[in-house]
Amino acid sequence: MIDLDPRLAADTHPVTQWPLSQVRLMDDVRFPWLVLIPDRPGLVEIFDLPAEDQDKMWREVAHAAATLKTLSGAHKINIGALGNQVSQLHIHIIARRPDDGAWPGPVWGVGERQRYDQAELAEFLSGLRAQLIAPGQGIVEEGQTR
Amino acid sequence: MIDLDPRLAADTHPVTQWPLSQVRLMDDVRFPWLVLIPDRPGLVEIFDLPAEDQDKMWREVAHAAATLKTLSGAHKINIGALGNQVSQLHIHIIARRPDDGAWPGPVWGVGERQRYDQAELAEFLSGLRAQLIAPGQGIVEEGQTR
Repeated sequence: MIDLDPRLAADTHPVTQWPLSQVRLMDDVRFPWLVLIPDRPGLVEIFDLPAEDQDKMWREVAHAAATLKTLSGAHKINIGALGNQVSQLHIHIIARRPDDGAWPGPVWGVGERQRYDQAELAEFLSGLRAQLIAPGQGIVEEGQTR
Repeated sequence: MIDLDPRLAADTHPVTQWPLSQVRLMDDVRFPWLVLIPDRPGLVEIFDLPAEDQDKMWREVAHAAATLKTLSGAHKINIGALGNQVSQLHIHIIARRPDDGAWPGPVWGVGERQRYDQAELAEFLSGLRAQLIAPGQGIVEEGQTR
């Protein structure tokens, strides 16, 4: 497993490991917010990944996004790869609601982060881990390849 | 060609049409900023696209991102699919520099948009059209499939 940038490590909690990405939860109770970090060294831009890993990465992002939308009942999913502050390639997947306090703007840099308390965190991580089965494992119909 | 949301149409200029996406330029001279809009009706979330069109879409995004980075000499490319204000699925690809005025935050909602004047717009569109050849056309080596 690659080294995580210290800011990513400090801001997020591990959820699970997928074929390509580490799946982590942003420690901010205001927004259901996953971060996917491709488990390859030295990546900054998406196009730094070989083509087939790009396909794999986006499939993992789409699967995380669809699962998070169902799990959170969100109105909209925001997906972003910014990396202006932390250059290690990481993809944000954020569940948004019209009453979420940053709506309709983006969430980055808005207001003060509110960390989960221990009980909330344990409960949310448990729910996530039950739902966030890796793409292609138990979530596709017979005969599908993904 | 699908109907564009009126806000997307008003805020952007057409650059070219790729196999899946309309490529458009955000009319804001502060940031080199492309918007890709998959040419399929009724899309809101990325996972609304069939799997193979998702692959195609992200290949187009990666190609636009790599080209824009080269063309603009940007420090970092930001990629985002938000859709909180305009629900029609569209992907932002934005060239960022440490001196760009929104750095290191995201660009959405920051400051006042500055539209291109006619000469700047014509010049930039011309440069983009010369470089933004569709993925798979003339940019891959013999024997590659993309």
